[in-house]
Parts: sequence; structure tokens; C-alpha cells
Amino acid sequence: MRLSRFFLPVLKETPSDAQIVSHQLMLRAGMIKQNGAGIYSWLPLGLRVLRKIEKIVREEQNRAGAIEVLMPTIQPAELWQESGRYDAYGKEMLRIQDRHDREMLYGPTNEEMITDLFRSYVRSYKQMPLNLYHIQWKFRDEIRPRFGVMRGREFLMKDAYSFDIDEESARKSYYKMFCAYLNTFSRLGLKAIPMRADTGPIGGDLSHEFIILAETGESAVFCDADLVNMAAPGPELDFESDLLPEVEKRTQYYAATEEMHDEARFLSEVPEERRLSARGIEVGHIFYFGDKYSKAMKAVVNGPDGKEVAVQMGSYGIGVSRLVGGIIEACHDEKGVIWPKEIAPFDCAVVNLRAGDDDCDAACEQAYERLINAGFDPLYDDTDDRPGAKLSKLELIGIPSAIVIGPRGLKNGVVELRNRKTGATEEISLDAALNKLTAGV
Amino acid sequence: MRLSRFFLPVLKETPSDAQIVSHQLMLRAGMIKQNGAGIYSWLPLGLRVLRKIEKIVREEQNRAGAIEVLMPTIQPAELWQESGRYDAYGKEMLRIQDRHDREMLYGPTNEEMITDLFRSYVRSYKQMPLNLYHIQWKFRDEIRPRFGVMRGREFLMKDAYSFDIDEESARKSYYKMFCAYLNTFSRLGLKAIPMRADTGPIGGDLSHEFIILAETGESAVFCDADLVNMAAPGPELDFESDLLPEVEKRTQYYAATEEMHDEARFLSEVPEERRLSARGIEVGHIFYFGDKYSKAMKAVVNGPDGKEVAVQMGSYGIGVSRLVGGIIEACHDEKGVIWPKEIAPFDCAVVNLRAGDDDCDAACEQAYERLINAGFDPLYDDTDDRPGAKLSKLELIGIPSAIVIGPRGLKNGVVELRNRKTGATEEISLDAALNKLTAGV
Repeated sequence: MRLSRFFLPVLKETPSDAQIVSHQLMLRAGMIKQNGAGIYSWLPLGLRVLRKIEKIVREEQNRAGAIEVLMPTIQPAELWQESGRYDAYGKEMLRIQDRHDREMLYGPTNEEMITDLFRSYVRSYKQMPLNLYHIQWKFRDEIRPRFGVMRGREFLMKDAYSFDIDEESARKSYYKMFCAYLNTFSRLGLKAIPMRADTGPIGGDLSHEFIILAETGESAVFCDADLVNMAAPGPELDFESDLLPEVEKRTQYYAATEEMHDEARFLSEVPEERRLSARGIEVGHIFYFGDKYSKAMKAVVNGPDGKEVAVQMGSYGIGVSRLVGGIIEACHDEKGVIWPKEIAPFDCAVVNLRAGDDDCDAACEQAYERLINAGFDPLYDDTDDRPGAKLSKLELIGIPSAIVIGPRGLKNGVVELRNRKTGATEEISLDAALNKLTAGV
Repeated sequence: MRLSRFFLPVLKETPSDAQIVSHQLMLRAGMIKQNGAGIYSWLPLGLRVLRKIEKIVREEQNRAGAIEVLMPTIQPAELWQESGRYDAYGKEMLRIQDRHDREMLYGPTNEEMITDLFRSYVRSYKQMPLNLYHIQWKFRDEIRPRFGVMRGREFLMKDAYSFDIDEESARKSYYKMFCAYLNTFSRLGLKAIPMRADTGPIGGDLSHEFIILAETGESAVFCDADLVNMAAPGPELDFESDLLPEVEKRTQYYAATEEMHDEARFLSEVPEERRLSARGIEVGHIFYFGDKYSKAMKAVVNGPDGKEVAVQMGSYGIGVSRLVGGIIEACHDEKGVIWPKEIAPFDCAVVNLRAGDDDCDAACEQAYERLINAGFDPLYDDTDDRPGAKLSKLELIGIPSAIVIGPRGLKNGVVELRNRKTGATEEISLDAALNKLTAGV
């Protein structure tokens, strides 16, 4: 993408109403624009990151055997009256009346709707286990939306729902999602720690939050330091195998958010040198809640013995738009964002320090084309901004690596190869720089 | 995808409340489920088609130089009060109050919000021309939603908005979208005819609808038959070149919907043998409306002479979810859907007529794997349904081609290769069938 044909409205000043660094950087880097309290437009740079995260989340859901559907944002109130949550949900639910005065709502989550979908089609245990997910915008009418996309009102969530004939099978479905989440966050460049969690208004008896560590995290977390660097199961994991060992490998360690923290257990179970007390951000939450919804909404199937049984359910959420903010909280410095490679809005950049200079233009065009032909998605800064402004912009938006081409270097046969994360720069030939970049060095 | 692990709830009976064939077939083929009046869930099969259409629309917008953003579904009422449309829009606008009694709405379209976005960032003619688009869910509270996704209330639309410094430049932006639409519909396997249209509530003085022909179309259309088979400009079109000839090549012919039809002109301009009077479905609509919104909302920039000028705008819509229904209206027979290749939910199918039989299983697995390795996305019916049910299901859901493998054929060294569109079947070796399929024959 040529920057001259892109839309990247970076801001010079930090907006005064943005309290946390991810919100500040997203506004400054031209990733989002606020349209109302807790409601944002995704500008081209932000949308690229959002879509990359969404893609990884989707791929890992598919790999774990979940099947994608797409439920609407607007739901009829009747479903929530059946489950009993229509009154219980309170003011966070955005309630709507249509032109015929029918009561509707903007879905804050989809347990009811998916249970209705399930009961419309599934009659037999033979059609299970079944895990359906969607990636759709939700709305929660937070009383004080803040922190940008970290706590917005309209937000993008991946929510999966599992249906099983009995608890044993349901636990297996839970373990699948547990492992899929470890792989998802690992691919996003994050170290996410599963922590036993309160089930809250969803209900149920088994639940884990996935927490990433960040100094600016919203809540205190306490865990065994050995958990932090434990590698994810990886893409070779067979989701049809017994996944309990993978789960227990982690749940055997102490890990708890503030709400669930038990100081006495922490002190007794975790050796002093491994006691990690830090700040964390929730990026995923999984629940097993049995027949809470299936009973209320009569989602029953015929079991192997021919008798009707209410299905066992779980739900599994990842805050896709929230992750954009969460990742920035975990990956930035004073100059701007430092994107993990897999989700960077552009793989790399080519910076023309003197657009209009024949030699610079030719070298940049060559670099740009070779990168595209090698399958990369580069940003080419072909504008006539000042060199200093170009380089700061590049640091602000956090592109992992860049080839910087100027007239002085070209005279000596060199360009500058820059690494955003390490800050390393080296002066080498354009060929050498391109070879290094395309080799992923 | 193995059908045993997919979720494809086909219906045996045609739902009695579905009046048109696309709605009936989408329900029967397990593509959608109704959640409320004009509100649908997209089941896995339907979602695959929706995403393929969306991808083609996106690629052609990008090729024409439009830049993708994503605006939220919920909008503040203030923007619409500025443009004067908040009162004018009437009951089709879904109006919402949040917990603080702030007036909001579910966006039926985005002229106001994009104009606000533009004025927040763009100050100079040098930052133009600019064309921003998004693909987002909209809501129009139709008094009588009907015809399934053809006239739903919650629907997916691609809407692009162009910003130019003067009318000359704005017309060029309009021509770009005009040509991008021709290419888009052509890639979708459709013959879409641009017809001069009324600008309606959007306003403006230049507008075209893109109409596909279908016997069950919603409105009468009249045009020169030569227009129908005119080839789209194609992917080699240079969008920076003068596109007026491409536009005029079509607009020189008579083509009008019922609303704009002028019988006298039709009779005098079109030779009798080329007078086509048929039924059509609107799948796209483009508008040039000048400074209607930019003036009202003060979206002004500095022109080359340093003076402030209200920008010239156009908007360009494609009904992405509506297209799914529209394409079925144009592409079906009495057995079910006949998907154009580019948007079929699966490229092809492998049907195991006797799952559990060692020879059949082995041959099917081989076929399935070879297709995947060749880069295809096949559906493998590995279930133990009856052969007849499997084949009717395949016809119902409209997969373009299938390799049908049964024990009798295997004994003679053959499988059956079926073409959904032509109905042709041939008995050939598995190798030959795979070679034909992967060669796209």
C-alpha cells in the first residue's frame, strides 16, 4: 500500500480524554475515531489489525472443530424472557422497541439465541458434540464506557457455544476450547495465563479467564511464575485426543485474579521465588454451565437410551476488539506501538526519505515490488513529508521492520534496515536488506 | 469439511411462510434461520456464501482504490440532526435511547457518519480524492419485512463514500465505482445491467441502479438486449485511466426500471428485436449528490486557491446479504440452488454412497485429500444417510460438481462425476475424475 493512497490520519497531540496508553496510541496512530461514548469507527490501520486478530481466532476455532455461524445483532426479547435473563440483565442491556412496539434488544451475548437455534434443529445425541461460534458485534450499555476499545459499548466478540449429551463429553468440549485459546493467544504473540474464575451472571461451576500481563492491567493477578512461559500446545495438537493432561499441566499451578485470590493458599502452594503478583488484562473467558439454559429453554435431545435429556452447554468468549487495546498495553514503548509480527497492520515498510529524487524513487519502487512479489504486505511511504516526521510516524504505528532509503545512503550503496522492537538499525545494501526481510531475519 | 462434523440442517418441507424461491431454498438448504421479522441467523452453509460474496466485493473495491474502514452499527442522533435527516427518515430508522436517555439509532446508511469522519481529519484538497468504504450490518425497520434476506431488516451492506474537490473529479470517482461494480457482479457470475435511477432520499443528480434479471424479480425493467451480454471491463482495467468511455459504452443504450421508464423513448430508441422487457432485482445503487451533506455538515477543505470549499460527495452501495437471495433467484432449478463457481459454499463434493465399506471409505478419503492438497475446499459426505437422500441434498445445496463413489462402480473401476449446472454425469476412473475436477473442466 502506498501511503499517498492510504488514509492514515495520525495525530500530533495526545488526546486529553484518553486515560490509558492503548487508547492514546490508537487515537494518535489513526487506528480509531470515537463516534460516541464507547462507540468507535475503525480507521484503515486499526481495521487491518482487527481483521488479523479475527482471522487467527477463527482459524484456531476451526482447528478445534468449532463451526462458524453468524447470529444477528438484534434479538427478540422473548428468548431472554424464556431464560429469565430479560429482567435480570439490568441496564447494561440495550433495549429497543421497533415500529410495531415489539420488544427487542442489541445482543450483549448469545446464550439464549444459540440455544434456540440448537433446539430448532437438533433432536438426537448422534448430532453431538456440537460447538457453534460466531464473531459478531455486541453492545453492552456500560454506565461509564472508558479506556477506548478496552471497555467500549459496541465491541467485537468471538463467542462459541458447546452442546453435549452429558457432563463427561461437555468437559471434553471445554478442554478443547481451553487448548484452542492457548494456541490462539500464542499465535497473537501473547503469553496468556488461564486463571480459575468466578462464573458470574452466566452461571455454572467451571470457568477460566485468560489473562495477559501488562503493567497497566485492570486487575491484580497472582500466579506461579512457571505458568507465564509455558509453551502453548501448538498446531500439532490432536483435538480428538485426551486433552485433560494439557489442561492439568496448567491448572495444577496456582493462578488467580483478585476476585478469586486466596492469599493463604498462594503462600503455601507457591515457593517464594516463583510468586508472581502482577497486573493483568482479561482477553478470554470460558464457562461450563451444564443445563442452565437448556432446561429453561427446553433444549432437549433423545439420548442413547431413547429418553429426552436437557443438553450440557458451555460458552467461550474472546474479546476481539478488546484484544487490539490489550495487545498495545502489553506491546508498546514511549515512541508508539510495537506490533507482534502476526498481527501488524503491515508486515514491513519502505520509507522514501526524498520522494521525487530519481534514485530514491527507483530504489524504493524496486524494494516495494520485490516485497510484494515475495508475498509481503508492505507500506510504502512515498509522501513528501520530512524524513523525521516519516520515521516518527513509522515508530508510532509500530510496523515491525522498515527499509529506509535516502540519497546519502544510496550514494554509498546502502540503505538502512530498522527493527522496531529491538531498535536495531544496520546500513547494508538494498539487496541484503531485502534478503534479510524476506527471510524473516 | 466432513459433513459428519459440519452443521447442515436441511429441511424436508418447504416452509409455508416463505413466498419466494430464494427464501424457500435458503431455509430448506440450511443456510439461514429466522430469528424475528426480517432478522436472520446465517447458518454455516449460508455464511460461507455470504463471506465469499463479501470477499469479492472487497477485492474489487480495493482494486478501484477505495479504502476500507469500519463504522459502528450504532450512531448518535446528533449527526442526523445536523444533516436534517433525523426527522425526515421516518419510521424506517430504528431509534434507540441508551441508559442515560441519549438518542441513538441503528445506522440504516452512513452518509452522515462518514461526512463527520472526513471533516475530522481532512483539511486540504491535497488529501483527495478519497473513497472510504465499509461492509457493515445495517438496520431498516421495514413495515413489512419479507422475501427472506432480499428484504430483511438487519442486512449486510457495502457502502462506499467518495470525496472530491470539484464536480469533474467527483464524476471520475463515480465512474470508478461504476466500473468496479461491473467487475464485481461479473466475478459473482452475474449479468448486472446499470440503469439510470431516481436518487430518492439520498438526493443528488446522477444515479444508477445495477439490476440482475430474474423471472421472479421485484420490478419490471426495460432495456436494450445488447446491454445484457456486454462483458465487464475486467481486472486489467486501469482505474487511473479515463473511464468515461467504459461508462458511456453502456449508458448510450436505453435501460430503465419501472420508475424511470419512458415508453415512448424505449420504442423510438430501441429497435424492436432488441427491446427487452423483463423482471429485475436491484443489487447495487450508486449516487453522486454533490455538496448535499458536506454543506449541511460543514465538510470543507482548502482548495488550490486557498479558499474553503464544501466537498463533492457520492455514495455507492451493494447489498451483500441481499445478493445471496438475488443470486439464488437468478440461479436455481426445481431441485435447488445452482451456485456460480466463485461463490459456491464448497468448490465440490465427494459423496460416499456406502460409508463404512472399506473400499468406498478408502477411495473417498483419497479423493477428499487430493482435492484439499490441490487447494480445493471440498465437502465430503461421509454420513450413513441413504444414497438417494445424499444426492438430493447435494442438488438442494447446489455444489457445482461432485464425485460420487459407490461399491458397484468401484468394482468396475469407476466413480460418477456430476455437474450440478448441466446435470451431466459420467462414469470414469477416480483418477480421471480428480484430474478433470482439479483442471476445472
